[in-house]
Amino acid sequence: MSSAVDSRQALLEAAEQLYAARGLEGVSMRDIAAAAGHRNNSAVQYHFGSREGLLRAIFRFRMRTINEVRRAYLDNVVGAGREGDVRALVEAEIRPLTEFLAETPDGSYYARFLARVSPSVDFTLPELSEVQGAGREIVQRLIGALGHLPRRVALTRIDLMFNMIISALALVEQRRAEGRPQLSSLDDTVDHLIDMAVGALLADRTGAS
Amino acid sequence: MSSAVDSRQALLEAAEQLYAARGLEGVSMRDIAAAAGHRNNSAVQYHFGSREGLLRAIFRFRMRTINEVRRAYLDNVVGAGREGDVRALVEAEIRPLTEFLAETPDGSYYARFLARVSPSVDFTLPELSEVQGAGREIVQRLIGALGHLPRRVALTRIDLMFNMIISALALVEQRRAEGRPQLSSLDDTVDHLIDMAVGALLADRTGAS
Repeated sequence: MSSAVDSRQALLEAAEQLYAARGLEGVSMRDIAAAAGHRNNSAVQYHFGSREGLLRAIFRFRMRTINEVRRAYLDNVVGAGREGDVRALVEAEIRPLTEFLAETPDGSYYARFLARVSPSVDFTLPELSEVQGAGREIVQRLIGALGHLPRRVALTRIDLMFNMIISALALVEQRRAEGRPQLSSLDDTVDHLIDMAVGALLADRTGAS
Repeated sequence: MSSAVDSRQALLEAAEQLYAARGLEGVSMRDIAAAAGHRNNSAVQYHFGSREGLLRAIFRFRMRTINEVRRAYLDNVVGAGREGDVRALVEAEIRPLTEFLAETPDGSYYARFLARVSPSVDFTLPELSEVQGAGREIVQRLIGALGHLPRRVALTRIDLMFNMIISALALVEQRRAEGRPQLSSLDDTVDHLIDMAVGALLADRTGAS
């Protein structure tokens, strides 16, 4: 691996970690360069052009892999004729993310990064949407599987549900990083979250439109 | 109001706002003193003793009011004989918080403060537990209302559910503060969240223990 590629990768990982801990406003380009071992404060600008370019690069780096795993899950769901099964679709969305967290118990930051940074990022940009194909198909199939709900209600529930799951995973990740007690193991928490997400999507509807 | 009380209150509000935006690690005592108009960097230490004392004071300030509103909701629920009604109990927990957010549309920070700071705070400290009486009773009554689930499963679901709702409200608050488009109004989002929370608590259970 060339030194330029190493250098770029070190900046991505340092930035993910700092943004996960402090959020967008608490981190400067100088902090990131220093954490990645650069004496040169313009390293971020050299590799990514701007903070927005850096953020997009972090998302692309993580989402490319997660999108591929989602695609494999989704192909299995559709191949088994379960494309109307809310639980199977929720698992296809969530498990690729939770498997990534489970595989990096000593140092995952991505759940917290997602929870803190996603609200300020425009995911409709072409370079981000190209690594979200499977996730978007899952949402469309979930809307279909929730055909008893008005489309707008289904979309709002799906949006809230995914945001809530990411927040819950960020909390698990943070408690794990701080060595704080957890009510459940990561595996059990994921099973609970999937049960709860299915219940939440299929819940009786009162007034909300 | 005396100047010392004003000064203390200004520090509380400045700290809540800064922690909401940047999290614990992104804010120094100096930042808080400056934001509250102090030239003296030891203002936080003078009023609160330490960062931990400041955090507890912020929670006490907000939770005292929210706890009283929860108590009123809970008294109504029990008075109407609905103490086994999951939806009524969820509303008693959530609406006092969402009413507070609805009443301060131009500048609420408490949902984000809760979402960012709660994971690092010990709520079993006596001075915090004394303003949580209604919330704790709601949790105990919810466990009773979920009597078909093992107590440990019920507790985990309740913990995850409340954390997820706070995260969702923090996201609404952030999008509102940034002037970003929302899928739903705050009122509709709250109705959706309550429907989803009830569905999540009452969801079919698979393997998770």
